[in-house]
Amino acid sequence: ARPRVGYFYSGKKPGQDVTDTMNNMKVKDFQSIPVVVRDDVSVYDAISQMFLDDVGTLFVVDKKSYLAGVLSRKDLLRASLGSQNLAAIPVHIIMTRMPNITYCAKNESLIQAAHRLINQQIDALPVVEEQPDGFKVVGRLTKTNITRAFLSLSENHDL
Amino acid sequence: ARPRVGYFYSGKKPGQDVTDTMNNMKVKDFQSIPVVVRDDVSVYDAISQMFLDDVGTLFVVDKKSYLAGVLSRKDLLRASLGSQNLAAIPVHIIMTRMPNITYCAKNESLIQAAHRLINQQIDALPVVEEQPDGFKVVGRLTKTNITRAFLSLSENHDL
Repeated sequence: ARPRVGYFYSGKKPGQDVTDTMNNMKVKDFQSIPVVVRDDVSVYDAISQMFLDDVGTLFVVDKKSYLAGVLSRKDLLRASLGSQNLAAIPVHIIMTRMPNITYCAKNESLIQAAHRLINQQIDALPVVEEQPDGFKVVGRLTKTNITRAFLSLSENHDL
Repeated sequence: ARPRVGYFYSGKKPGQDVTDTMNNMKVKDFQSIPVVVRDDVSVYDAISQMFLDDVGTLFVVDKKSYLAGVLSRKDLLRASLGSQNLAAIPVHIIMTRMPNITYCAKNESLIQAAHRLINQQIDALPVVEEQPDGFKVVGRLTKTNITRAFLSLSENHDL
């Protein structure tokens, strides 16, 4: 087949158009492993955990391992300024708690999740699975994951 | 012209292909306003500034307003754990300093800048202009900006 004026060979099927490519990007394809702490650990231990795992957001779970809260670096920085004894304050005092947590599901479109990160002005969403009594945390979706997705578009589409 | 097997008409000029669209995205089209502190302010004041402007990264400048350092929430959180008197420590003690700062220019491609955010594992790049004696800070490029760029692709390309 020879190139013809007005057409160019994309090297891809119509289903691989960028709109379709983006609509087919799912949360589960880009999510990271979640880092979780129990709601009775201290703020001091949560900060240590954050540095240990080098993440910007921790998810807090109750004793049944259901999602109970979210802790950002900003929350922990605020707490560390306000208090002299971080080892004595449990994280459930300072965390953002249900039902105020913005989350996503692993089969949702990455575009929807990215919209949620921007609209809620947050750095990370817990990826959750709904169960009868609460949400299990199965992943972590951050702006780093979206940045990687952005780069993958340029790599996929580089001719 | 009729569609032919192995080819399809993209409905866009070659210049509007996603690769070209992405290559044409420049840092200056997506950057945010930088938040800057002087290198002699205290860690306490820097943290206050970070909350006041609701940013995750501060850029530190010397008395000639040239870029001298970068302060992330992580740097400030580490400092706040380690010290009892944050008002007595100047930020130049804890900042990441030149020449270890990763930066970008406003006319650079967003793809290159995004690669740098991922490879260096940082949240923000100062957008700088080189001058004879140093770098002036003219912007701030973060993973939030890249997330917005990602969404703009889906909006531009929605058919």
